[in-house]
Amino acid sequence: MKIAVIGATGTVGRAVRAELEARHEVIEIGATRGTHRVNLLDADSIKRLFDAIGRVDAIVATAGRVHFGNLVEMTPAQFRVGLDDKLMGQINLVLTARDYLNDGGSFTLTSGIVGAEPIRQGASAAAVNGAIEGFVRGAAIEMPRGLRINAVSPTVLVEALDSYAPYFRGFEAASGARVALAYSRSVEGAETGRVYKVH
Amino acid sequence: MKIAVIGATGTVGRAVRAELEARHEVIEIGATRGTHRVNLLDADSIKRLFDAIGRVDAIVATAGRVHFGNLVEMTPAQFRVGLDDKLMGQINLVLTARDYLNDGGSFTLTSGIVGAEPIRQGASAAAVNGAIEGFVRGAAIEMPRGLRINAVSPTVLVEALDSYAPYFRGFEAASGARVALAYSRSVEGAETGRVYKVH
Ligand SMILES: NC(=O)c1ccc[n+]([C@@H]2O[C@H](COP(=O)([O-])OP(=O)(O)OC[C@H]3O[C@@H](n4cnc5c(N)ncnc54)[C@H](OP(=O)(O)O)[C@@H]3O)[C@@H](O)[C@H]2O)c1
Ligand SMILES: NC(=O)c1ccc[n+]([C@@H]2O[C@H](COP(=O)([O-])OP(=O)(O)OC[C@H]3O[C@@H](n4cnc5c(N)ncnc54)[C@H](OP(=O)(O)O)[C@@H]3O)[C@@H](O)[C@H]2O)c1
Repeated sequence: MKIAVIGATGTVGRAVRAELEARHEVIEIGATRGTHRVNLLDADSIKRLFDAIGRVDAIVATAGRVHFGNLVEMTPAQFRVGLDDKLMGQINLVLTARDYLNDGGSFTLTSGIVGAEPIRQGASAAAVNGAIEGFVRGAAIEMPRGLRINAVSPTVLVEALDSYAPYFRGFEAASGARVALAYSRSVEGAETGRVYKVH
Repeated sequence: MKIAVIGATGTVGRAVRAELEARHEVIEIGATRGTHRVNLLDADSIKRLFDAIGRVDAIVATAGRVHFGNLVEMTPAQFRVGLDDKLMGQINLVLTARDYLNDGGSFTLTSGIVGAEPIRQGASAAAVNGAIEGFVRGAAIEMPRGLRINAVSPTVLVEALDSYAPYFRGFEAASGARVALAYSRSVEGAETGRVYKVH
């Protein structure tokens, strides 16, 4: 398969690339680094990317920012960061890149454990992850040409504990390699409308 | 209890009002009709409303628009309608009106069955409902002063079948009176971070 990994230069994306590269042609895509560049917040940038790399069999997204902060101080503008970036970035990708997927191809989006298991400062992330999971369930039944769409909900990665450990005390971290299996299952499996939890 | 019902002039809101009015002081709030008016998309409008009605023991929201349409034709702008209206309206309400809730008071938001059970043309609604449910789980653990927050996820209402029946073939509708019980359970119960499904 020819697989586009958007966010391939990040913590989760690097692990996904390593898992998929053993068997497939993986295209590394970042925002500021990597073989190719894209800005998921800009539909034209998504079109330019796929015009350059051509049709693919699978598209994986491991990109997206959210604001973490105390709910009692959170402003609507801060709340919007995650909607505009992590959520709309991945939605833009699905709405725009769909035509570049070969028949039977798949999208694999990224949500996160905070949608299901709350943490302090995570209310906005919880909303964004819930939205991604709802979207995947809703979109799956309307995909044309046998296209599939799933999400992976990772727990905190071992590789990310340097920055995230204080938010996730008591949570079991997973190695990037273990999280990457869920992406492989989505890409190489046959299911659609699923959320693969790694937690 | 003194209970503000925002969206009280709508299909769901009217039923909620009828259930709660038997035991409580219910303040009817609409966008264009009702005893009081508010625009949830405007934080200043929310402040003006609560400056006028004063502190309350519970706030119920049964308002919010989403775009229904085929996923293959949906534009990012159409997708955004539900994020900007149903989702951010209810989020604005929580972030702004929280200071007007008495200690131990509650928010009850509205999601919908489409977040859990997909229908054609419902991908955006599924995302919005998923976001509301994720938010409620995430926000519950950060609420100060014993404040609570829950959501109700109604199936299609019997009272709404005139317009919505074609979208919900085979779904079991519920009467407004039955759906309203879930709102009563949230307002008059003691739980937080729950999604009460009426389906
Ligand atoms: N890390 C974890 O433990 C963890 C756990 C659960 C969920 N997640 C979720 O997984 C996703 C990735 O997390 P991460 O830790 O891997 O993040 P990361 O290390 O910061 O990597 C982000 C990746 O996305 C790219 N990117 C950033 N903005 C972009 C944009 N507008 N358009 C396209 N690409 C963009 C980055 O490119 P550049 O490198 O060029 O900037 C990078 O490749 C996030 O949504 C996060 O919430 C992470
Ligand atoms: N009806 C169903 O079967 C059903 C099932 C599941 C979920 N839901 C959800 O329940 C919610 C209410 O649905 P509904 O059928 O009751 O809708 P509806 O009959 O159209 O009523 C909407 C209510 O919200 C008010 N409103 C509209 N825009 C507002 C704004 N910007 N700020 C504050 N108030 C606003 C309206 O006031 P005015 O009357 O003054 O315009 C009205 O009271 C929606 O989010 C819907 O997705 C409905």
